Formats: sequence, structure tokens, C-alpha cells
Amino acid sequence: MNQASHFPTWADIEQAAARINPYIHRTPVLTSQAINTLAGASLYFKCENFQKVGAFKIRGAMNAIFSMGQDEISKGVATHSSGNHAQAVALGAKTRGTKAWIVMPSTAPEVKKAAVLGYGAEVITCEPTLEARESTLKSVVADTGAQFIHPFDDWRVITGQATAAKELIEEVETLDALIAPVGGGGLLSGTALSTHYLLPEAHVYAGEPTGADDAARSFQAGRIIPSTQPQTLADGLLTSISEKTFAVIQHHVKNIFTVSDEEIVAAMRMIWERMKIIIEPSCAVPFAAVLQQKEQFAGQRIGIILTGGNVDLGKLPFK
Amino acid sequence: MNQASHFPTWADIEQAAARINPYIHRTPVLTSQAINTLAGASLYFKCENFQKVGAFKIRGAMNAIFSMGQDEISKGVATHSSGNHAQAVALGAKTRGTKAWIVMPSTAPEVKKAAVLGYGAEVITCEPTLEARESTLKSVVADTGAQFIHPFDDWRVITGQATAAKELIEEVETLDALIAPVGGGGLLSGTALSTHYLLPEAHVYAGEPTGADDAARSFQAGRIIPSTQPQTLADGLLTSISEKTFAVIQHHVKNIFTVSDEEIVAAMRMIWERMKIIIEPSCAVPFAAVLQQKEQFAGQRIGIILTGGNVDLGKLPFK
Repeated sequence: MNQASHFPTWADIEQAAARINPYIHRTPVLTSQAINTLAGASLYFKCENFQKVGAFKIRGAMNAIFSMGQDEISKGVATHSSGNHAQAVALGAKTRGTKAWIVMPSTAPEVKKAAVLGYGAEVITCEPTLEARESTLKSVVADTGAQFIHPFDDWRVITGQATAAKELIEEVETLDALIAPVGGGGLLSGTALSTHYLLPEAHVYAGEPTGADDAARSFQAGRIIPSTQPQTLADGLLTSISEKTFAVIQHHVKNIFTVSDEEIVAAMRMIWERMKIIIEPSCAVPFAAVLQQKEQFAGQRIGIILTGGNVDLGKLPFK
Repeated sequence: MNQASHFPTWADIEQAAARINPYIHRTPVLTSQAINTLAGASLYFKCENFQKVGAFKIRGAMNAIFSMGQDEISKGVATHSSGNHAQAVALGAKTRGTKAWIVMPSTAPEVKKAAVLGYGAEVITCEPTLEARESTLKSVVADTGAQFIHPFDDWRVITGQATAAKELIEEVETLDALIAPVGGGGLLSGTALSTHYLLPEAHVYAGEPTGADDAARSFQAGRIIPSTQPQTLADGLLTSISEKTFAVIQHHVKNIFTVSDEEIVAAMRMIWERMKIIIEPSCAVPFAAVLQQKEQFAGQRIGIILTGGNVDLGKLPFK
């Protein structure tokens, strides 16, 4: 059976947009002459760093939480996340009027833990491995009866993330390419689906840190090869892709570029200095890929989703 | 003779806006629910940190440079500035197609010197005192025949800075108060004039660093008392007010609040963390004043001009 027959449809994405619109910000699309000159292309930045909870993750979490019936949601929700999805589920639960349990690795930035607690969720700290996250989450779900909202391997979440590219394309109208960062692949697969439905001629690319390049390796190999010891300061992209996100990526993504942490910090610094906006290291990855692949993208109109702006101001990577 | 009869008129401000509009950005007005909750008031931030050269100063410099006839401008322009006015005059001269000589104190941030050089201006470094600035500038003007554009004690500059508040008021329409930071007083007096013409019932306030509080002391004393050894990390506000700016301030400003460097850094951090935008320490001063004077401003609609976003990312004041 063709995997693509399970993919969210355009109607699903439209329904998700209508469902979550009351609870999210319509974020602006910004451009910068200075950045375009540096890139040799016309870049359209969808500023999800200005989104509620400071990241696009609120889209997927809200869509999942507001998709559920009252019975299903009554015992609360649970998830594991290194950061922004944690805040998103916490705020989503608060908005829906239910409880949230968030499993976070001990390495998650303090500012993100504090924000989750601020939304009234309970934080359970675990070792920073995928195994520890999953086993801790399993026991939380067993103890509480909460509904698990996976950070990306969930069609409701992917459909929610797709609404960011939907808004970007509807505002800018013509684009030659869209680029998203890839960690677990929720945003990338959502971006690929919206682009497929709205701009079938445009190409979708991903940027990935060299130190957490499971998506690039899996894409080349044609099968999922998870990261074992991912190492990158782009802490939102440490996770490995999943079955659902990989299926969409195989169908609808043209290529995945890997960039070093040095390239990521340089790209992040350019955006901070030239655009005067705060972005996380993770969301500098697509711009770093554009700078690395200048010839490929020369003169094109490129949409880039700036995924989030949650940084620890006491631990910035600039010298 | 009444000093106010020399003040720029509403027609002057409208002409300045028409003159400079082709060369500047229309900057957005941003709001933040989180910030409003912290302040207990509705704040409307005019984001001149997104302006060309990263600061409102381009308005006054462009207005002065494009007010001059071809003969007057033919030998170039010159100024002294600790930062943003320097970049503004440099870009203004480049735009008009003439030369610029910029006298900068040796303490000016490297990023600001580099930007001035990038616009093709010549930089002359001097000791960080008002005396050294003025004597160096005098010899540059004598040697070159360049026209001096004072950073603030110049009606053309004040009229240009007034266009920021004009845009803010025209967009937001009703405001109870406007607050600007005060260094030399160019932005403050421009803000006071636009408010006087457009919203005569609204009050204009200033925020000033405690370590450079010449405007507050002069305002209380009724005569200019310059700072002798100003000390604040708000490096855009080290200068003392001038005859022209003090005259407008005496006529049209309601009160001047002083805030400590600790209050400035705390306010700056809140704006970075909650709004995800980059602002200089100097432009956190009005927000710091609102937080300090919560009772005074409770429930009001307040316009704040975020003056600039040029910071040295390698030397941030966060821990």
C-alpha cells in the first residue's frame, strides 16, 4: 500500500488552520536587503520566533489537543521534549483546560524548563537519551492515563506544523523553494505537504546540523538511520526522524544539506545583526544552507521558516 | 522673544517626512501581551531598531542632508557622534553622493565604527570627551569645508527625528502618553513637537540613565546643567542636552524619570526575551521608566520609541 495515501490532505491542513487560529499569532514575513545581498537571493523569513511560546511548535500541539474529544482529553496530555514542544503542549493543555506532564532531558535550557512550569505543567526530568525519554514518558502515561502527544511522529502534529508554510505561501504567493530545518522532521514534513498542495512546482529542501545528520544519511540510504550520539549547539535538532516524517520527506523533499556548527553560528549572527531579531541556533540552519549553496540558490525567491527564538541570553555562542 | 516661535512647525515636520520617506523604512509598531501584563499598561513600540542603519538617527541626518542645496553640500558633511548618528550621516552622505567625515570617540563600539567605514565615510578618532570631539570636528571642518551636522542641536535634525512619533501616532491614533529616551534631546524634542501638533492632550515623558542625568537636573533647575563625567552602559545617552532641545523640552515635556543601569538591563532583557527583538541598552530606558512608575501609567496607552538595535554581540550585559 502506498504510504502517501495516509498523508494529511489539503482539507486536513485547512481544518487545522481554522482550529488553531484563535490560539496562535499570525506571524509576520520579514525581508532584509542586507541579507539578500549576502545571500545573492530573495529570502522571505516566516517569523515563528514571534509565535506564542516563541516557536512554531504551538501549531502542532494546539492542533493535536483541540482535535481530541472531551473524553479523550479529560485525563490530560503528556510528552517528552528538549524544549519548545514542551512549552507548546503545556500552553495547549492550559488553553484547553486540562493537565500536562512534560518529560524533559536534564540538559534542556533552564529558560525552557521555567517557561513550562510557568504554564502550570508538571516537569519530569530524565537522562538526555531517547531511551530515557521514552521509558520515562511510558511510565508517566501508565500512571496518569494522559494522552501522549509525540513531538513529531503524529499526523495531527505534522498537520499543525504545515500551517506555517501555508501562511507563508499564501502571503508571498510565488516562491522557487522553501527550506526548513530538520530534527524530528515534523516541521519539514508539514512544510513539504503545504508546498506540495499550494506550489507543486516549488522545491522543498532541508538544512541539518552535521553533528545530527540522521535525516541526510537516511535520505541518501533510503531507510531510517537514527543518530546515536548527536552533537550540535542547535539543540532543537538533536532528535532523529520518525517513520511518518521520513515517509513524507522521501516523497516530497528534494535534498537535505548539512551545515557545521560554525556555519550555524555565523548565519545566526548575521540574522541577529542585520535583522535585529532573536532566533535560536536551530533556526539559523536553513539560512546557513543557503549561504553554503549560493550557486544553487542564486537569484531565487526562497521561503525560510524561522522556527523559534528561545535562547538562554546568559549562554550565547557569540565572541 | 518667545523661543517657541523658532520651533519647527507642523508643516516643517510634514515636509521632512515627504523629503526622507524615499530613503528610510516605514518601521512597524509592535505590541506584546506578555510585556503589557508586566507593565500593567498597553505599550506600543515603534521599532526604529529595524530602521536603516539600525536607528532613528537616519531620519534627522537624511532631513538635514537633503535640505541643503547643491552648492552647500558640495564639499561634504561632517559630524561627531558616539555611534548611530555617525552611521546615519555616513549613509546620508553616500545617498546624496557627497563625502562624510565622522569624528568618533575612541570608546565607540567597534561594530559602529566598522559600519561607518562600510558606508565609505572617513573616521577621525578622538578622546571620549565633549571638548575633544568639538575641537577635532572644528579642525576637520576648517580643513575640508564640510558642512557640520550636529547630532541634535540643529532644527533640521530635530524635525527629522519628529517623523518617528508622527508615524507612531498616525498608526495608533490614540495614546495617553509618549516616552522617549533623552541623551542630547533630539529625539525627545522631535517627539514632543509631533505629539504637541497631533495629540495635544497627550503627555510626553522622558527616561534618562541616572548616571547621565543632565536633562532631569536641568529640567528641575530650569537651566542647562551639563553632565561632567556621565557613566552608563546606555552609550547612546552620554551626551548632554543643548539650547534648542532644552527649549522644546521645557515647553512640551511633562516629566523626566531617571533609571539605574540595573533597571535598564532588566528592562532590556525583558524585551529581548518576550518580544524576541534586539534593542540597544539606550532604548530600554523608557520601558524601564514605565516599570518604575507603574502607578503613574497604570492602564494607559503609551507609545514608546525603540531607538536602535546596534549592540556588540560579543559584549552583552546579560549573565
